[in-house]
Amino acid sequence: MIQATIITIGDELLIGQVIDTNSAWMAQELNRAGIRVVRRVAVGDVWDEIWNALDEESKHAQIILITGGLGPTADDITKPLLCKYFGGKLVVDEGAKQNVINIFNKLNRPMIERNLLQAEVPDVCTVIQNKRGTAPGMLFNKPHPTSPAGEEIVFVSMPGVPHEMKGMMEDEVIPHLTKKFKLPVIIHRTLLTAGVGESFLADLIQNFEEALPTQIKLAYLPNYGMVRLRLTSSGFDKAQIEKDIETQFSQLQLLVKDYLVTNVDEPMEKVVGKLLLQKNKTMCTAESCTGGYIAHLLTSIPGSSEFYDGSVVSYSYGAKEDLLNVNHQTLLTKGAVSEEVVTEMAKGALQNIKSNYVIAVSGIMGPGGGLPEKPVGTAWIAVGSKEKIVAQKVFFRFDRARNIQLTAVTALNLLRQFILQNT
Amino acid sequence: MIQATIITIGDELLIGQVIDTNSAWMAQELNRAGIRVVRRVAVGDVWDEIWNALDEESKHAQIILITGGLGPTADDITKPLLCKYFGGKLVVDEGAKQNVINIFNKLNRPMIERNLLQAEVPDVCTVIQNKRGTAPGMLFNKPHPTSPAGEEIVFVSMPGVPHEMKGMMEDEVIPHLTKKFKLPVIIHRTLLTAGVGESFLADLIQNFEEALPTQIKLAYLPNYGMVRLRLTSSGFDKAQIEKDIETQFSQLQLLVKDYLVTNVDEPMEKVVGKLLLQKNKTMCTAESCTGGYIAHLLTSIPGSSEFYDGSVVSYSYGAKEDLLNVNHQTLLTKGAVSEEVVTEMAKGALQNIKSNYVIAVSGIMGPGGGLPEKPVGTAWIAVGSKEKIVAQKVFFRFDRARNIQLTAVTALNLLRQFILQNT
Repeated sequence: MIQATIITIGDELLIGQVIDTNSAWMAQELNRAGIRVVRRVAVGDVWDEIWNALDEESKHAQIILITGGLGPTADDITKPLLCKYFGGKLVVDEGAKQNVINIFNKLNRPMIERNLLQAEVPDVCTVIQNKRGTAPGMLFNKPHPTSPAGEEIVFVSMPGVPHEMKGMMEDEVIPHLTKKFKLPVIIHRTLLTAGVGESFLADLIQNFEEALPTQIKLAYLPNYGMVRLRLTSSGFDKAQIEKDIETQFSQLQLLVKDYLVTNVDEPMEKVVGKLLLQKNKTMCTAESCTGGYIAHLLTSIPGSSEFYDGSVVSYSYGAKEDLLNVNHQTLLTKGAVSEEVVTEMAKGALQNIKSNYVIAVSGIMGPGGGLPEKPVGTAWIAVGSKEKIVAQKVFFRFDRARNIQLTAVTALNLLRQFILQNT
Repeated sequence: MIQATIITIGDELLIGQVIDTNSAWMAQELNRAGIRVVRRVAVGDVWDEIWNALDEESKHAQIILITGGLGPTADDITKPLLCKYFGGKLVVDEGAKQNVINIFNKLNRPMIERNLLQAEVPDVCTVIQNKRGTAPGMLFNKPHPTSPAGEEIVFVSMPGVPHEMKGMMEDEVIPHLTKKFKLPVIIHRTLLTAGVGESFLADLIQNFEEALPTQIKLAYLPNYGMVRLRLTSSGFDKAQIEKDIETQFSQLQLLVKDYLVTNVDEPMEKVVGKLLLQKNKTMCTAESCTGGYIAHLLTSIPGSSEFYDGSVVSYSYGAKEDLLNVNHQTLLTKGAVSEEVVTEMAKGALQNIKSNYVIAVSGIMGPGGGLPEKPVGTAWIAVGSKEKIVAQKVFFRFDRARNIQLTAVTALNLLRQFILQNT
């Protein structure tokens, strides 16, 4: 199988100032195209370390994708380095130059000399034009160091700006690789379970796992208190692979049916959204401690206005009273983090936003604000409809960001269960 | 300087199912401790590839931190591999065993045999107890392959679950490394600019950059349409380094003063939060197209209830009218994405949530919903107070997620400017 490695270049990755989201996206695309990613490496803007990474990764793969280090400033040394590595000299590419000029014209910004330097490329590369930015991509071929004559390694250098890199990958790089290499089909089938731990699942499906054909691989992917199970297979006979993996996947779904959330690879918010669309219903949210995160998850889905009406993020007592009709006395006697308040929040949201279903949450996410009887990580979640509201207390003992995420996903799962049980 | 590399293990990283946030966090912590991270490598759950990564990274660093691959299931092969690599055999660690038992008792969950396997460790390692989960960490020492006798490489293997890894790093790993190695001070000073491109900035500070002392490094970090500039220096004389970098950083701030947002390394939402706290004022939001993302950014800050009252996420017309008093006629004649509607949203939020300042946004984030006169990426942003509301149209041509992020950060910056100009 054709193997690829990904090299990301930039000091910001090595001091942790930036989280590398490019690599995950690139890995997905390569995988979908039937290319196996065997390694991902990040190095700084340091000449020897980049050079060494190019040498080292050549031993592991036939395709080496490189991102970053192509900016117009002095700390970006990748372009001159690639020029030297592949034995070329820098020349102006007319297409890239026109692209830079067009972009500055469109933005109506003054162009400076430095911007035009972006149009220089090594004369030994194939230029990949950048429709979304000024730095062109570059494609190089080099004989494989240890393979019989004729076989080549493909190196592709792209900017680190995510949407520029993504555009180049989709428009140019993936089509080029698909044409150059004979690529197999890789098929993944993923399901999501909730309410059960990884070890318990492993015991539940132990016999299934041991009896799996060798070409089908099972992986456990824990995430936000849920576990995804993924079957993977690859080969050149697409119909046969699909049939084989489907057989196994059906068995797996049966084995975990009590915990099954969805049998496609999608996040909880999408599962809830699809369920609402299917029933032609809408929902709203009233969020205190999750501070708009549930709303953000739901509205990240294109077309979410079809099933999501809105949210009241009621951080202050005033917002809870004025926008969600929460009783002032209830707040004073029971406290904001209580079954009574979260139930009133749910009712108030349904009244004011007029949706079919509602989620309301109120809790203490930390690090401050904990009380002896309500420690940090405590939250009340209410879900329901005009006919019925049910509330549940949850407790997570993590940091603020993770407590918010876990509370949000748990609340979405509770609404999912409510909808399934009450229709 | 002491060098480290980070190895992350797991197929999920190579098929892009998971974004690696651990590495960035670890790199930050190592950097803070005076350890330079030179490479980060991700490999799959494949025996030869993990083995090879251990060999290869030994050539680059004195410290090798490994995360992932320690789960209780069959695809997790890292523990037996490390056992063989360092020439030991697996034995039960009593501390780790007691920890597993305690965790299951506390969770009140039945424990199965498989869970106890987590307590097995190679007899050649120092065990790092895991206070937050069942898989213990392991620390190994090995002579450096190319160094004079006596020098050792430290390998540390930790679980991939972020909060478990973070706990071990803080409690055990960093203190151990700080004691074992003589570590220098690394100092970064970062500022954030808005409203100016990377090339323009580079021209503006070209003389400054060329005159920088060699031990001080400048980096450009573009992010969400803004650019961060970072100066870095390191050495053993902390007072001198701080003095030198401070001198340069003051100059740099002066040079970019027209575009300066903040002179500390913090996100825009924190800049706005601090400004409000300093003026003892509060704010609220009315979000349509950003769908709660601005609320989420603000409430991700611990203690944000001191300056943030809440939000109305008004996805439907009904929510805009009922919760934000937007005039039905305005919606019909001007459309939801208009100066008039976003101004009414801002006024309605101020009336109903009773804060000092407000941000309101309405736009089309894509991929669907675009109109010839209002293409995907168009948004109206209003910011202001009871005395005055100002509205501005913005346009971003990216995907939904990035349009939402850019609109949110731009809106926060507009409010920041409004507060500075109107007090």
